[in-house]
Amino acid sequence: MDEFELIKKFFDLNKIGSGVVIGIGDDGAVLEPNINMHQVQVIDTLVENIHFPSTIDPADIAYRAVMTNLSDIAAMGAIPRWMTLSLTVNNVNYKWYEKFSNGLFEASNSYQVSLVGGDLNFGPNISVTISISGEIKPDQALLRNGAEIGDSIYVTGTIGDAAAGLEFLKKNKQNNYLTQRFLRPTPRINTGRELIGKATAAIDISDGLLGDLKKILVDGNLGADIQLDLLPISKALSNHFNSDKCYSFALNGGDDYELCFTAKDEDVSNISGVTRIGSLNNSGSILCHLQDNIYKFEDESYRHFE
Amino acid sequence: MDEFELIKKFFDLNKIGSGVVIGIGDDGAVLEPNINMHQVQVIDTLVENIHFPSTIDPADIAYRAVMTNLSDIAAMGAIPRWMTLSLTVNNVNYKWYEKFSNGLFEASNSYQVSLVGGDLNFGPNISVTISISGEIKPDQALLRNGAEIGDSIYVTGTIGDAAAGLEFLKKNKQNNYLTQRFLRPTPRINTGRELIGKATAAIDISDGLLGDLKKILVDGNLGADIQLDLLPISKALSNHFNSDKCYSFALNGGDDYELCFTAKDEDVSNISGVTRIGSLNNSGSILCHLQDNIYKFEDESYRHFE
Repeated sequence: MDEFELIKKFFDLNKIGSGVVIGIGDDGAVLEPNINMHQVQVIDTLVENIHFPSTIDPADIAYRAVMTNLSDIAAMGAIPRWMTLSLTVNNVNYKWYEKFSNGLFEASNSYQVSLVGGDLNFGPNISVTISISGEIKPDQALLRNGAEIGDSIYVTGTIGDAAAGLEFLKKNKQNNYLTQRFLRPTPRINTGRELIGKATAAIDISDGLLGDLKKILVDGNLGADIQLDLLPISKALSNHFNSDKCYSFALNGGDDYELCFTAKDEDVSNISGVTRIGSLNNSGSILCHLQDNIYKFEDESYRHFE
Repeated sequence: MDEFELIKKFFDLNKIGSGVVIGIGDDGAVLEPNINMHQVQVIDTLVENIHFPSTIDPADIAYRAVMTNLSDIAAMGAIPRWMTLSLTVNNVNYKWYEKFSNGLFEASNSYQVSLVGGDLNFGPNISVTISISGEIKPDQALLRNGAEIGDSIYVTGTIGDAAAGLEFLKKNKQNNYLTQRFLRPTPRINTGRELIGKATAAIDISDGLLGDLKKILVDGNLGADIQLDLLPISKALSNHFNSDKCYSFALNGGDDYELCFTAKDEDVSNISGVTRIGSLNNSGSILCHLQDNIYKFEDESYRHFE
């Protein structure tokens, strides 16, 4: 089966989606943006053995690749619309493509995103690049640079689960809840939409809470107090690990794909599924508190190329 | 130097480009499309040792990656606007990034394309994914499916050079003209624009003339006669190779990134830089002619996964 047959069978499966004038099969896709909307574009690559273990199911590889990109769309407050896929594979078989395709469309269909084009390549290992375009009204995008002293810090969902799940996966162990949190992240598209005009800054947590929080403390005077006993830790996580380990996963683990945002409390009191974990100050650094004590932590958040 | 410093130093170099509301540095880029325009999106990955030899200069890797994507934009007749980059590298050094960045911006600046976002990853080998967004008026896109019996077949520039250049590169030999044609392809953006409303079908030649021509013979009844003595062969190519080898490079070589299009002769008589090489018939297959003889050729055009 050659490239064109593979694309036909496993990827050219979208019914013509909203705003898709020309989809898969030409030199490029032709798309019709909604009028008076700005466009949000994200791109992200997941590489085998770097971003995910080579043992995971192809459906999970694809599902996760879509969702991690959608998480960036969520962090901007945008509505996802179209995606392109550039897939590099090594010696995979027919069944692999079938599973990958199933995971891909399960993810994209659940957020009404149309696959409109792509590229299929052979290489030494599996690498999945997805680019997603979303739309947002002018001046509504959630940015990283609006946080102010006195703002509260919030996160969506629970944090630390995915990093713990990855530890299970690396040891070839299963924990249904935690491993699924790594394999099948939930992009917070709806919360992102609700935060428009309310959050002063927002980012998605991919590298770890502390590392990503730093990126919204762009003004060098900004600092943060985090109350560890406020961190939303899942029962599954606290059942398996002591509190030190839970805090470590939550602070430095990464792969959560939850949102971290700053806001005035009164602006977000009606938004569900979010937890206040601290506040911003003018100290220029991040302190974690446990009851009345400063909690020492190591900044291990994931940074490439260190 | 970590990921964020690398991005700052080597990639966040665009002055705010046209229509760029938020560029590099947030979860996604925010872009302002021109009103009443459709958008054209393309994505393409070049993998080390698959699409280019690992010995080529990083500036050429980047330059070529931008231009091959722009060639898809050209084949649609669109105006390029924005690009995102997902770069996977192995153990490269500071100097590598500097060269790569120089080649990238040399290419993008020459077509007024702004780099608006991206992703930097570590992996076992170098892999460059670029996604470009362009714009075109509604119903103007050049498509693959409009060719009709009796149309003439045209190509831009000269063909076969890049494939010959790649042979030199693989043998670690230099031929300035031919190797440059591989390393530094010229996307035919202007010709693509001129062909709007004139070409009945268009495609860019990446896999080889015969293989790509087949993709515009989408109606099973369509066939083509190619006159080999009409093929635009550069002096550099014919000086180095006998005519059989020149035809083989031109027909099956790939990597030309010239346009192949079909049109009525009278519609394109004013367009420069294009050569008529044959015409479409109702035979359902492609025949190559040399003077009065049918020329036997092997279909070796590049298809992945054969």
